[in-house]
Amino acid sequence: MATLKKLGILLSGRGSNFEAIADSIKAGRLQAEIAIVISNRADAPGLESAKRRGLNAVLIASRGRVREEHDADVIAALHHAQVDLICLAGYMRLLSPHFIQAFPNRIVNIHPSLLPAFPGMDAQKQALEYGVKITGCTVHFVDEHLDNGPIILQKTVPILDGDDVNSLSARILEQEHKAYSEAIGLILSGEVEIVDRRVLRKLSRSEGR
Amino acid sequence: MATLKKLGILLSGRGSNFEAIADSIKAGRLQAEIAIVISNRADAPGLESAKRRGLNAVLIASRGRVREEHDADVIAALHHAQVDLICLAGYMRLLSPHFIQAFPNRIVNIHPSLLPAFPGMDAQKQALEYGVKITGCTVHFVDEHLDNGPIILQKTVPILDGDDVNSLSARILEQEHKAYSEAIGLILSGEVEIVDRRVLRKLSRSEGR
Repeated sequence: MATLKKLGILLSGRGSNFEAIADSIKAGRLQAEIAIVISNRADAPGLESAKRRGLNAVLIASRGRVREEHDADVIAALHHAQVDLICLAGYMRLLSPHFIQAFPNRIVNIHPSLLPAFPGMDAQKQALEYGVKITGCTVHFVDEHLDNGPIILQKTVPILDGDDVNSLSARILEQEHKAYSEAIGLILSGEVEIVDRRVLRKLSRSEGR
Repeated sequence: MATLKKLGILLSGRGSNFEAIADSIKAGRLQAEIAIVISNRADAPGLESAKRRGLNAVLIASRGRVREEHDADVIAALHHAQVDLICLAGYMRLLSPHFIQAFPNRIVNIHPSLLPAFPGMDAQKQALEYGVKITGCTVHFVDEHLDNGPIILQKTVPILDGDDVNSLSARILEQEHKAYSEAIGLILSGEVEIVDRRVLRKLSRSEGR
């Protein structure tokens, strides 16, 4: 039996996407193990949730610290845990270039819009105010630019006439919970590669092009 | 029996979206009539197609003319034909502000992406190069800014690993042909209104909010 690939999770709050990943693993939908959960905030409910699940849950507080120094501690913890892939799950810190270069194409994030539309904060509110009829979520590799790296997977969500930010965010979050585990499974399978900015299946690429 | 609402079509080329609208009317899927088809180019195949269909097809050549003067002739022809709604179908001219103000919220366009992603030329190529997994088409009201007005309807289209610009454009075009007639029917029904930037059904708005 192959060794399970190891995930590192970074979070700052509730970490509902972390919980969805943990549930997918428990249910056998995702072949992986969570090697470490790191929060930069002591009061993150996701940290408690990780402990309750018996996971290796670590606080590396960021408040008052220089970004590079805090990042160095996080990098060390991730290396020590020998993670194969790092999943941001509501991690409210910009990663330093040094962090990103330490794990090339091994950091992923999820964003509640169909990127490149509505990057940054309050993506759901942006979508409502723009008046789009369809939005969704995007799982992407993290690079030096905000919400910019190669896209692994997207799922669509309709915007209904009666929607407000809460109802729309809840509908998108349902799809985020599915999308993140699917995308992680795809990356860990080793079957995809990045060609320019496109994330392609290796097989279909040699067959279809 | 209610009088049919009158459409004015502006095109510069093949006009495949014009043909899809004409087909929808003929098949009874769209309750409207095409009062006038205007091309700014003598060699537009869409102009011939309109004539073959027995429609009022008019050439108002733009080459070498000042925009405002050409626009004034087009506006006069549309007024004379008493159009209720103007549909751009591959019309390769920027409309002057005067044109847009002459028909407030009565000019619509279709764009081959999920706006606000990939506005402007070569939207399909932009989407492929960015590496999105989902794109689509957008029917929107035309305002003074490029590909910017309130969105009436959007349809999604997956991007497949083997896609090039041609295969993707063809897949989007299929959805454009459905989306445009649906959106026109929705506007002509009088059941939608623009609230800020959002195009909402009047009924669901009073019931749902």
